[in-house]
Amino acid sequence: MNEFEFIEKYLKPLITAGGAAKLEDDVAILKPFSGPQIVTTDTIVEARHFRATDPWDTIGKKLVRVNVSDCIAKGALPRACLLNLTWNRGLGEDALACFIAGLANDLSMFGIELLGGDTTSHSGPAVFSLTLFGECLRDTGPVRRNSAGIGDDLWVTGTIGDAGIGLDLAEGETQASRELRDKYLTPELQDMLIAHLVSEFASASMDVSDGLLQDASHICSVSGVGVEIELTDIPISNAAERHFQKNLDADDIIRLASMGDDYQVLFSANRDQAAEILTTAKANGLRVTKIGRTIAGRYVSTVYRGERVEKTLTGGWQHSMCE
Amino acid sequence: MNEFEFIEKYLKPLITAGGAAKLEDDVAILKPFSGPQIVTTDTIVEARHFRATDPWDTIGKKLVRVNVSDCIAKGALPRACLLNLTWNRGLGEDALACFIAGLANDLSMFGIELLGGDTTSHSGPAVFSLTLFGECLRDTGPVRRNSAGIGDDLWVTGTIGDAGIGLDLAEGETQASRELRDKYLTPELQDMLIAHLVSEFASASMDVSDGLLQDASHICSVSGVGVEIELTDIPISNAAERHFQKNLDADDIIRLASMGDDYQVLFSANRDQAAEILTTAKANGLRVTKIGRTIAGRYVSTVYRGERVEKTLTGGWQHSMCE
Repeated sequence: MNEFEFIEKYLKPLITAGGAAKLEDDVAILKPFSGPQIVTTDTIVEARHFRATDPWDTIGKKLVRVNVSDCIAKGALPRACLLNLTWNRGLGEDALACFIAGLANDLSMFGIELLGGDTTSHSGPAVFSLTLFGECLRDTGPVRRNSAGIGDDLWVTGTIGDAGIGLDLAEGETQASRELRDKYLTPELQDMLIAHLVSEFASASMDVSDGLLQDASHICSVSGVGVEIELTDIPISNAAERHFQKNLDADDIIRLASMGDDYQVLFSANRDQAAEILTTAKANGLRVTKIGRTIAGRYVSTVYRGERVEKTLTGGWQHSMCE
Repeated sequence: MNEFEFIEKYLKPLITAGGAAKLEDDVAILKPFSGPQIVTTDTIVEARHFRATDPWDTIGKKLVRVNVSDCIAKGALPRACLLNLTWNRGLGEDALACFIAGLANDLSMFGIELLGGDTTSHSGPAVFSLTLFGECLRDTGPVRRNSAGIGDDLWVTGTIGDAGIGLDLAEGETQASRELRDKYLTPELQDMLIAHLVSEFASASMDVSDGLLQDASHICSVSGVGVEIELTDIPISNAAERHFQKNLDADDIIRLASMGDDYQVLFSANRDQAAEILTTAKANGLRVTKIGRTIAGRYVSTVYRGERVEKTLTGGWQHSMCE
């Protein structure tokens, strides 16, 4: 199967946008949205962001979700995308079909139109990029990382650490918790309604994907604030607690908050809005938890049951570029 | 060097666009242009579109140019881009710095602002994608592939086959023609003025990158026309003619017109405009050559000194997706 046959068989059936010109042209037309337009792009790489032994439909879904996560964390709704696919020729057509099925499922679920892309192949690890166009709900544009004020509350959606444990379990090939493993395989995003919550209330916001503590440190450095997080307030799932088979101490929670692949939203908001945030979240079935506050300073500090934890910890995923 | 250090040292200095938010956020803002907005994305893969032994600055330039080529072929000017870089950790920082220097040179030369992207690494072949946003010169949008009329003239810019021979020479490591090798390494795009020429005159247009004859066949299939090309009218450079060391016969020209990496523009235009096209091109220092015409039918046919060449030839690059 060559690239033209692949596009004909697998990609053309996904096209709904007129701007895609049936994938029969060199470029796509990008029509302006009503609200401010943002763009984000994330690449996922075999053996780095997924394993070639993961089910291929989950890899297709992951590619969509890691990008949707960035988009909704900015108070924007996903609208259209481009796909860059570098396939490994040895993997076979069944895997490719399965990957596209997972991708197609999620594009449809999140209401994202495929506009175009590029299809290549080689003999190395598969590499996928998705470029996602989103429409901001706020007239002023995306909710930034650099706009947290001192004295704001710090909130996080969902639970933290599940996917990280899931990856450890997947690597160890234990079947101890299918639930956690599945959260690694297919990021469980919050409902798109989270974009509305962020847009309405957040002073600053970002998605949590490289470890909560490290990601919080990015808000610190660009907003020029410190962050104080109460470790016991970080939301941990029942499945993660069961995995530890003991009460979690500070080190356990720090470990969970340094794992990647959460794909939750971390945001700051004026403390006067705390009650309204909780009410709005509850009314919309969203889980949000207040985990700390912004303070004077530039770093993340953590507190365990009211006691300052000595080390300033911002561990998380960092990709080495050169050996 | 981790990805954050890489972004700080190599990418942040390139940022000029406010929408890039100093690369310190999850998304970029995509401001609407005055003219219709298009987007195109091309991926280049080590050992497929470039060789790891090619000078790294030429690879950075190639990444920009393969995308600019798509843009100007549509009668649009390049404006802004995203970069997805999957680096091989074993290649070292010098190569990376050199790649970025080539990329930066061309972004600056073509007036393209870097908006954002994603940086990853792995142990496999390097994979680079650039997503390019362009502004159409025509109010009605990009010049399409599907809008050639029957009886139009068929034109091509520059010369055909140089880069293809250059690749053969590079593979053979002969130094016979540095000029041709350089055309493989760094696509020699026509001046941006070609976008204006296309916008003003073309009925249909596309870039030539996978072989002139195959690319012409794409115009046939989506415009619902046939194309007749006079082989002796295809512009061949002096360097390419010298390489053959003989007068070119039909097979030689077909071979040149089936090679990739030309990055020229193939367009059709009403025959009444031929004189004006030549005058405009000359006034702007652009090389354009009339190589044939569109006819009833659906395929490419070739003529050699007025005699129909029997086989319908549309050979060119096709990437196999699965073995």
